[in-house]
Amino acid sequence: MVRVGIVGGTGYTGVELVRLLLRHGRVDLALITSRGNAGMRVDDMFPNLRGACELSFSEPDMGALAECDVVFFATPNGTAMQMAPDLLAGGARVIDLAADFRLKDPAVWERWYGMPHRCPELLAEAVYGLPELNGAAVRDARLVANPGCYPTAVALGLLPLLEQGQVDPASLIADAKSGVSGAGRAAQVGTLLCEVSESFKAYGVSGHRHWPEIHQTLSAVAGSEVGLTFVPHLVPMIRGIHATLYGRVLDPEADLSAAYERRYAGSAFVDFMPAGAHPETRSVRGTNLCRIALHRPGMGDQAVILSVIDNLVKGAAGQAIQNMNLMFGYDEAEGLLDVALLP
Amino acid sequence: MVRVGIVGGTGYTGVELVRLLLRHGRVDLALITSRGNAGMRVDDMFPNLRGACELSFSEPDMGALAECDVVFFATPNGTAMQMAPDLLAGGARVIDLAADFRLKDPAVWERWYGMPHRCPELLAEAVYGLPELNGAAVRDARLVANPGCYPTAVALGLLPLLEQGQVDPASLIADAKSGVSGAGRAAQVGTLLCEVSESFKAYGVSGHRHWPEIHQTLSAVAGSEVGLTFVPHLVPMIRGIHATLYGRVLDPEADLSAAYERRYAGSAFVDFMPAGAHPETRSVRGTNLCRIALHRPGMGDQAVILSVIDNLVKGAAGQAIQNMNLMFGYDEAEGLLDVALLP
Amino acid sequence: MVRVGIVGGTGYTGVELVRLLLRHGRVDLALITSRGNAGMRVDDMFPNLRGACELSFSEPDMGALAECDVVFFATPNGTAMQMAPDLLAGGARVIDLAADFRLKDPAVWERWYGMPHRCPELLAEAVYGLPELNGAAVRDARLVANPGCYPTAVALGLLPLLEQGQVDPASLIADAKSGVSGAGRAAQVGTLLCEVSESFKAYGVSGHRHWPEIHQTLSAVAGSEVGLTFVPHLVPMIRGIHATLYGRVLDPEADLSAAYERRYAGSAFVDFMPAGAHPETRSVRGTNLCRIALHRPGMGDQAVILSVIDNLVKGAAGQAIQNMNLMFGYDEAEGLLDVALLP
Amino acid sequence: MVRVGIVGGTGYTGVELVRLLLRHGRVDLALITSRGNAGMRVDDMFPNLRGACELSFSEPDMGALAECDVVFFATPNGTAMQMAPDLLAGGARVIDLAADFRLKDPAVWERWYGMPHRCPELLAEAVYGLPELNGAAVRDARLVANPGCYPTAVALGLLPLLEQGQVDPASLIADAKSGVSGAGRAAQVGTLLCEVSESFKAYGVSGHRHWPEIHQTLSAVAGSEVGLTFVPHLVPMIRGIHATLYGRVLDPEADLSAAYERRYAGSAFVDFMPAGAHPETRSVRGTNLCRIALHRPGMGDQAVILSVIDNLVKGAAGQAIQNMNLMFGYDEAEGLLDVALLP
Repeated sequence: MVRVGIVGGTGYTGVELVRLLLRHGRVDLALITSRGNAGMRVDDMFPNLRGACELSFSEPDMGALAECDVVFFATPNGTAMQMAPDLLAGGARVIDLAADFRLKDPAVWERWYGMPHRCPELLAEAVYGLPELNGAAVRDARLVANPGCYPTAVALGLLPLLEQGQVDPASLIADAKSGVSGAGRAAQVGTLLCEVSESFKAYGVSGHRHWPEIHQTLSAVAGSEVGLTFVPHLVPMIRGIHATLYGRVLDPEADLSAAYERRYAGSAFVDFMPAGAHPETRSVRGTNLCRIALHRPGMGDQAVILSVIDNLVKGAAGQAIQNMNLMFGYDEAEGLLDVALLP
Repeated sequence: MVRVGIVGGTGYTGVELVRLLLRHGRVDLALITSRGNAGMRVDDMFPNLRGACELSFSEPDMGALAECDVVFFATPNGTAMQMAPDLLAGGARVIDLAADFRLKDPAVWERWYGMPHRCPELLAEAVYGLPELNGAAVRDARLVANPGCYPTAVALGLLPLLEQGQVDPASLIADAKSGVSGAGRAAQVGTLLCEVSESFKAYGVSGHRHWPEIHQTLSAVAGSEVGLTFVPHLVPMIRGIHATLYGRVLDPEADLSAAYERRYAGSAFVDFMPAGAHPETRSVRGTNLCRIALHRPGMGDQAVILSVIDNLVKGAAGQAIQNMNLMFGYDEAEGLLDVALLP
Repeated sequence: MVRVGIVGGTGYTGVELVRLLLRHGRVDLALITSRGNAGMRVDDMFPNLRGACELSFSEPDMGALAECDVVFFATPNGTAMQMAPDLLAGGARVIDLAADFRLKDPAVWERWYGMPHRCPELLAEAVYGLPELNGAAVRDARLVANPGCYPTAVALGLLPLLEQGQVDPASLIADAKSGVSGAGRAAQVGTLLCEVSESFKAYGVSGHRHWPEIHQTLSAVAGSEVGLTFVPHLVPMIRGIHATLYGRVLDPEADLSAAYERRYAGSAFVDFMPAGAHPETRSVRGTNLCRIALHRPGMGDQAVILSVIDNLVKGAAGQAIQNMNLMFGYDEAEGLLDVALLP
Repeated sequence: MVRVGIVGGTGYTGVELVRLLLRHGRVDLALITSRGNAGMRVDDMFPNLRGACELSFSEPDMGALAECDVVFFATPNGTAMQMAPDLLAGGARVIDLAADFRLKDPAVWERWYGMPHRCPELLAEAVYGLPELNGAAVRDARLVANPGCYPTAVALGLLPLLEQGQVDPASLIADAKSGVSGAGRAAQVGTLLCEVSESFKAYGVSGHRHWPEIHQTLSAVAGSEVGLTFVPHLVPMIRGIHATLYGRVLDPEADLSAAYERRYAGSAFVDFMPAGAHPETRSVRGTNLCRIALHRPGMGDQAVILSVIDNLVKGAAGQAIQNMNLMFGYDEAEGLLDVALLP
């Protein structure tokens, strides 16, 4: 059994972590902290947990956290970097679901997140926890930076083509669409049902924090700096990300599908779909799956890749547990196999 | 292992049965029939099943079905009554998720369902599969009539008060609201997103087929014919039923909460909530739970009971599996314990 | 032309007032105040107004407001009562869309709204602005209390039967359902899309502020204090109220439909529908209409009345303009006739 | 007054035409035909029209239609081409909201629509009714091909840049998203609320009928055949199209915004928004507006244009009436100015 602590369990990533950990057979969920709601029963905040979870939120206590084998941070950006050094020193391993350890260059981090980094010395050690890319490194990691939701959907969709050099890395486009839960559970006018239901819009077109993260990953994979246009949109639904990816094919004769089939042959969570398919976000809702389809409209030089995930599972809590499984020697799919609810 | 067959797996009840049976550790799902889609892979119709189910729909074959330990009918009304006699004779047990065996009086059945009953001789034997009411009889049943979705939510909400004689049985009101999946997966204008989204309406106010079913159950519990007004409504969401129940309290001093607490103390799937609670349908989505809260506005003589279920689980497929568990000597909760997806 | 000011135009009632006033041919919309957003263009907050409204929010200024012929308050409860006395003294007429002047008894107001009333001396003069009930008094009113959304739907649905003494006033039930816009535009976790979409729940069952308002109106109509159970619910949609009303019929032979037809024969905004109808909230979306249907399930002694309105129009801004029209001698429908957007 | 007939008024385009024509002050809506629903009152099918429209559907009668000044076809593809020649011969003018007269090359039409064209001789005469592009020709047209919804949003978004030669015409990408009403009111499993709500997907990526239409328009504007990748997606909402358009900027120093401002300076229905804006589909819901914003992420060579319309108004019925206004010498905005309903 792995003894688990969660720091900051009052957001959607937090409750999803709790749901998934409760059904994981080899986890002892020891504590969930919340500075603002200490003392409140977790199932008073999240009614789906009634009867399944007896825990109450507790004050963050470094001693109690350090006794955990692993601590998940489901906190706003900038929190994990304040506590991670001490926890690591105390012997716990850390998986941060926020952005604190995702970017390798602290200057880039500062520019996009608007605050100085508190422990830049840990950035080199931190493993970017996309298991399909960095699985081996994750196994030995003390500190895992769990990828963002958009970056997960985009990276999984483009990895095979970039690794094989089959698309022009200079002109990549990621037109991405997310359900509203990606914006979190904070009280904000912008995510009220009456503001986002029955409407569709792009946002952050001039610059979104996931751009440097995607750019870093794709550039590493491509072996040189990629050109990337990233446009996120808000979909009037709760969960799901759909990335529509465009890349210019370099060799018109190449068998692009084969690249995906080979790349994801042994992958527990990536489903490369048959020719002609259009993955729906509902087909992965509540699961750790990423489903991908590849198109070549008119057999032209533009490849169109469709990649869908559940932003709260493969895009957050599920991937974090997949990383935990690897770190503790379990099968990466332990506790994570499930069939999406449909309808 | 219980060998299971499903007749008619192309509706929402069917795919939910498949999802739940796939995760049940003691079931061998042998076949799923569909006259109209024989030969098609089940996961070609339901993309959530990709990677989890290798079956294809098959033509209904009485021989193959009779080799099952139990056959679920997830068919339109009027189908199960045509096949059940032969299946029972062949040794299989039958759980009908449609209405064929729910009403004890074949004349009432004919009036509400508009066709003569094909095997009225089985009606006496058929057990109305509301486990919280008829659990003992279900264990020995060959033929189970799985309750309707509204009847489940209404009956569980009123049972304790009617059994204890605490509300006037002559003036019961059930104002019930259902998600759209209750109307099924047939191609109909009336359930298009553009027709039902962003709107709310009542339907069938002058008479709905679940009225005689609820009336039969409540009358049996009360020991005399009840007076019942039942008004169903359509909610612009996929899953969930919320029944708001009104009953005139007979003894103003009575402790109504105690009746619920006692009645459902040992119940795996009924959650009687604390005073002041308002159950949300999302808190039971995808689960076999029924959550109930009791109110007495202004401490007047009107009791208001709020009862929520997932219409496709406790109101259909989940309850059917709960019945199957009882029939085959398993714990009634086997394979059915889950935490609702939130958000 | 009527010179109009709006105090507090940053909520949904405010933007709806602006939309309707802009299309009203005999109104000069002079100013919209907002303490928190003074200086901001109104169409920067509400993108639907781009190209139609050049105003910016201004600081509330008593002088400028008093120069208006009429001032609408689209403010939180407790604001209008602070400014109304001075405005009336200054010669403006006042229509309050909040609750400050709806209840005749200041003690009741204090109990339900948790603050002392600032000008109880105006309560007797204030006219409860339900034009179908108090149209004549509205014409001469200086101060109109615009009814709440639930109270409008419930009162219009029950008026004919109570006026004619055709239902038992002691056991009325109003099971009401509202879209989320009824909860306003404030940043709150409880009305985030991810909290209320795909779910349904009751709220405030033990006591809701609209209960005393409905109770006051129905009691006045019935001529004696009514017994009323009122249960509001939240529907996962933006606009619309559906009230399902239950009353025990006193004379089983009475022609209840005739009561509605007579009562609303000359009414511009009440549509009494044919027998068997089920009004949908979308059929009145964006309009000032109330559509009503009457049922007698099984011809029993329970009348079921279905009443739908758009909570932001007939339940707020539209009704306020209907009142304004009456106060200034216009046709009550001036600027308010429109066909709902469908789908 | 213009005497108007509608052929095929039972779909969403039809009811929207009726709604808009009823509020148009200079139109006499004479008849609405429907082969399948002749005799039925229009407001029995569309409850929003109760009280506003006394018409019943009639059998299509060539004599009665030819007496109209203009006949709108709101029919499936392939219907207008069967009746248009006779109507034109009879003196009526024709506006087809379907695709029959949109493509200039009958061979292309046959390939994409799967049937031979019945009157290819009319294709040269037919005017493609995008008023912002072909307004002058529309004024004199006998036969107008009303553009498709996607083509309208895409063309308006790209016109200024292509006309000015500011983007590379060889590598255009249109990532477009539509509400479900674009799929019509036919009874289909694929557009049931339970199939499309709470999900997002692309469709027709390998080829969609709007591709040749967009390709034809953009090529005409650019003066040579463009390279276009078009990917449509389905958004879980009723109305609205959002086109996200990508074009490679040819001159990095060019002032692209100025091109839009000049191009649409006198346009009643195109709103070019300020720098940094993100248009929301709800801001044009129910209106004939197109709102456009332009971005240059990172000031790179990729222009990103965001273009939103209401698919049933500017993308169908509203644009058809705009064309009618031009054809009959009215102001193009007559009867079409409205403020979107928000929320």
